[in-house]
Amino acid sequence: MKLLTYLVGDTPRLGLLDEGDIVLDLTSAWRAGDAVGPAPASVGELIAGGETALRHVEALVPVTRALAQPALPADEVTWLAPIPRVGRNVFCVGRNYREHIIEGNLARGRDPDDFPKAIEFFTKPPSSVVGHRARVRRHAGVTGQLDYEVELGIVIGKGGADIQREHAMAHVFGYTIVNDVSARDLQSLHGQWFKGKSLDTSCPVGPVIVTRDEIADPGNLDLSMHVNGQLRQQANTSSMLFDVATIVAELSRGMTLEPGDIIATGTPSGVALGMKPPCWLQEGDRMVAEVAGIGRLENVVGA
Amino acid sequence: MKLLTYLVGDTPRLGLLDEGDIVLDLTSAWRAGDAVGPAPASVGELIAGGETALRHVEALVPVTRALAQPALPADEVTWLAPIPRVGRNVFCVGRNYREHIIEGNLARGRDPDDFPKAIEFFTKPPSSVVGHRARVRRHAGVTGQLDYEVELGIVIGKGGADIQREHAMAHVFGYTIVNDVSARDLQSLHGQWFKGKSLDTSCPVGPVIVTRDEIADPGNLDLSMHVNGQLRQQANTSSMLFDVATIVAELSRGMTLEPGDIIATGTPSGVALGMKPPCWLQEGDRMVAEVAGIGRLENVVGA
Repeated sequence: MKLLTYLVGDTPRLGLLDEGDIVLDLTSAWRAGDAVGPAPASVGELIAGGETALRHVEALVPVTRALAQPALPADEVTWLAPIPRVGRNVFCVGRNYREHIIEGNLARGRDPDDFPKAIEFFTKPPSSVVGHRARVRRHAGVTGQLDYEVELGIVIGKGGADIQREHAMAHVFGYTIVNDVSARDLQSLHGQWFKGKSLDTSCPVGPVIVTRDEIADPGNLDLSMHVNGQLRQQANTSSMLFDVATIVAELSRGMTLEPGDIIATGTPSGVALGMKPPCWLQEGDRMVAEVAGIGRLENVVGA
Repeated sequence: MKLLTYLVGDTPRLGLLDEGDIVLDLTSAWRAGDAVGPAPASVGELIAGGETALRHVEALVPVTRALAQPALPADEVTWLAPIPRVGRNVFCVGRNYREHIIEGNLARGRDPDDFPKAIEFFTKPPSSVVGHRARVRRHAGVTGQLDYEVELGIVIGKGGADIQREHAMAHVFGYTIVNDVSARDLQSLHGQWFKGKSLDTSCPVGPVIVTRDEIADPGNLDLSMHVNGQLRQQANTSSMLFDVATIVAELSRGMTLEPGDIIATGTPSGVALGMKPPCWLQEGDRMVAEVAGIGRLENVVGA
């Protein structure tokens, strides 16, 4: 299932993005079905409901689809991030694609072959998360070097600590797309990366969360980033130094993962930082982050 | 006011730590007073209530004190962190005391005079936060280098972005103590500090949050850390490279601060990392983190 959160009036709803780009209203459908608790109004609330809630939604879908009501064309809905307010910071992996590590090292005047010895984790605050089609602010007074980063996002379904690598996939609810918008000047200046990764609206997530069963192999997904129609990043998740299962296992060592946690898995080469000269994001730029099997996450840079 | 969150049975309560180490139950008292919304059951919920809630509590205190009922000796209550579940990661400042920077540089074989050019921000997840007297886990299977760090904690009352330094103090609700327990081996190995700062129970906070009006100058507070009665850290917040107002202003540049945000302001010298040989934390070690005007935050290291 491709699940989304969208607005009807001022009220968030859980939706299913169905064939033909139709959005089915699962919040309304839920009320019509067997009650197994209050209707979730977002993908986040569905995840919080655990396996029971997920099974209930799966059962609802064929019925809702047959009725084709209530449904809306995807183009007509107001998208939110699938988990509009994450319960804690988005976890992020830095430097996880070989060519991106080399471009970053060269741009910063370092040894190009300086690869990470272990996964480099950092975070982005909940206040940075926005959804599909939301404006990403340029923050002209704060940064002169705003950059894009397309990434595969892991969404945790079942929490746990010290998860073994071979059991990691059972903790995954599904996958999404994260655009880890980064202020490169702040990232360098402040030593630790958080400040440059923390700006309001700098974390587009979505458009949907795809449940795990629909992604045969998260380690073999094409991903790309276009800016104003120009291809900037293009790679496959098979090029990750640390794969999905390894990331989940390593992050959970001594730290309990929670349902609804989002983990961005790093970006491939092609970011502005690596270009000569760098094409930093400007007002009006249109970013399209795409991951095969998930969708296209589109955001325009605004004031 | 010195405000705390504590348990009565399974139920969290908002308390006032009063003269004579007596805890007044403000959650019960609130119900007795003029209703201005539901009674807050933690300092976090009080902060979420804004100025109105704070004024209401201030008015309640003399009445509650006169009745001396319901009240408990502080030794008999089960303490929680003042904000038991923070709404997002605790913000932390690295390398903010000159002598600590030098000890860290020497321990890592770097130039001792390598000082930060700008504030180094990183985060600790909500799952790491525990209260006064809670056990801090040793995580023997994960780290061999567990360390302590006493820090002054800022608690945000009024949110905002791009806060000017001269207006920063008006956004502060109060102050607390943070023990930024750190796994030094993970901190080094993983490049970015998050992993070494993220372990479950590695962020004792408390015992109380002191409202801003009781701290005449947050830039002139003695702070110390004892481990098993031995003085390890001793300094004054006047030695910070970046003071409270500067930290609030800088963190808020392009990133909206929210009520209840906690910002740990960095630790002085004397951590285990700087000792020869380092006295890493072991099971049974008793840490006492003290900041003048706030109190003593005590935690024992357990399995």
